[in-house]
Amino acid sequence: MAVYTHVDEDALADFVAHYDVGPVIAFKGIAEGVENSNFLLQTERGSYILTLYEKRVNRDELPFFLGLMGHLAGKGLACPTPIMGDDGKALRELCGRPAALISFLRGLSVVRPTPMHCAGVGRGMAEMHQAVADFGMSRGNGLGLAGWHQLASACREQAEAVRPGLMSMIDDELAWLDGAWPTDLPSGVIHADLFPDNVFFMGEQLTGLIDFYFACNDFLAYDLAIAMNAWCFEPDRSFNATKARRLLAGYQAVRPLEPAEIAALPALARGAALRFLLTRLYDWVNQVDGALVRPKDPAEYVEKLLFHRRVKSPGEYGL
Amino acid sequence: MAVYTHVDEDALADFVAHYDVGPVIAFKGIAEGVENSNFLLQTERGSYILTLYEKRVNRDELPFFLGLMGHLAGKGLACPTPIMGDDGKALRELCGRPAALISFLRGLSVVRPTPMHCAGVGRGMAEMHQAVADFGMSRGNGLGLAGWHQLASACREQAEAVRPGLMSMIDDELAWLDGAWPTDLPSGVIHADLFPDNVFFMGEQLTGLIDFYFACNDFLAYDLAIAMNAWCFEPDRSFNATKARRLLAGYQAVRPLEPAEIAALPALARGAALRFLLTRLYDWVNQVDGALVRPKDPAEYVEKLLFHRRVKSPGEYGL
Repeated sequence: MAVYTHVDEDALADFVAHYDVGPVIAFKGIAEGVENSNFLLQTERGSYILTLYEKRVNRDELPFFLGLMGHLAGKGLACPTPIMGDDGKALRELCGRPAALISFLRGLSVVRPTPMHCAGVGRGMAEMHQAVADFGMSRGNGLGLAGWHQLASACREQAEAVRPGLMSMIDDELAWLDGAWPTDLPSGVIHADLFPDNVFFMGEQLTGLIDFYFACNDFLAYDLAIAMNAWCFEPDRSFNATKARRLLAGYQAVRPLEPAEIAALPALARGAALRFLLTRLYDWVNQVDGALVRPKDPAEYVEKLLFHRRVKSPGEYGL
Repeated sequence: MAVYTHVDEDALADFVAHYDVGPVIAFKGIAEGVENSNFLLQTERGSYILTLYEKRVNRDELPFFLGLMGHLAGKGLACPTPIMGDDGKALRELCGRPAALISFLRGLSVVRPTPMHCAGVGRGMAEMHQAVADFGMSRGNGLGLAGWHQLASACREQAEAVRPGLMSMIDDELAWLDGAWPTDLPSGVIHADLFPDNVFFMGEQLTGLIDFYFACNDFLAYDLAIAMNAWCFEPDRSFNATKARRLLAGYQAVRPLEPAEIAALPALARGAALRFLLTRLYDWVNQVDGALVRPKDPAEYVEKLLFHRRVKSPGEYGL
């Protein structure tokens, strides 16, 4: 939730001159996105999002992310699509940063998802998984099992101060996942961060998926496991099985899960909970003075992980 | 540049139901305004700004600010106008805060104003000063001479650490202003914060004044003195006399200054520089850990004040 870079009027005019979008009538920094600076650009022709990619994004990966959005939008999926400039390119420089103009999506993200919203997310995710089948690029998941081990090492010194017993819990979990993590499930490009922030609705109708900047190749069912963690717990951290049932049913209405994927769901859910526990813990113990974004409390994912540890069969997720 | 309060979908729907604006199609927090939370609300009918008034705003003063905007817009001035709800009211509660829906203005604020922009600001300010002549409400200026003395006292302990000699410079200046501050100039409601952030243009055409939340009753020419400080110095802190000439000429094309106002301009400019020096110094020495807004460096206004101290006659401002 921040704008890191100020774009002045001359730099903006030079940038916009590359696009066939008509005269600019408004330009406002928006409080969306944690890694990048986002602006709403309104022209006589419509609304657009202008994104400046800040330090934490690897420049070399931008063609993958923009190519993915273009591919999905081309297949009719409701997601932002990069606008091409007069040079046929979507990516250029603005204020010393890579930048892209991206189509604007209608809709609002929801803070309190209903079971209907969860069904929509499941359906939307399955449609995305089908649409990427013939996408030609790939990107490894740096936040997979090996990455979790690295994050755990990086937090080892400070984890105990955050919560007594946290480090041994993480070590136990990693040891268990090393043995239990599946090795052969249907794979493809997944969103990998499909939280309520990143899904737009009009009422209960899904109008778009956004923020593909964690997208990577991994097990398709792992994307569902992330979404279960993100959408199916209540603010009091209790698990809402109805929401999980609707999420999974929405998904399966488009792409039925294979038996191996269903069997792996509890392990995938534990891995997904650990992934967000570890990145939040890392950001928590590495807080930057004067940062514009406050880190999220890792405790939420400790409790989610504890829930998944108690799950005895995939049936508890409403399957 | 911040959004302090998160508005969830249910609270938003309840709020918007009071207005005849059609279905909501987008709602985004915008990085504008330091004191309040601002959102861009787009509906089938158009764009609006939704403002939540946060702690630093005095609730009792909101009818003055909203009344002023409504009065000015009613006179045809390009400024945001509060939208009335079905109950005939512009002000209601949202997420425990006073909130108002306000019309959307086209245009962009400029980072590097040209002399043409300065002329537009002068004209726009004079039009505002004429339009408030029959506005029925008033608000004292808490950031006038008495307020500067209070701010100076509050910063006394820490000022020296910010810049050696700063406190004695402030004390000297206050002593001089106590004697030199005018007592009888044309008065009325002034904007009191007409910085480039708060003026929109399309190209070089002024399209609107925004952010009236410092507006108060004071000398009209003091508003010009604030604008001279805000618009007529270059990034290297040198004074651009051409910009000042255009600012003052733009103003006088609508409302010619009286001889007493012209004579007072150097003192008003010193007071205006001290006012922003003191508020920036106060925010600088009272930085809040984890604040979403970084305080601005007070040094800029030390140099502006030193410039005005060397001015020997109003002619140096291009009059």
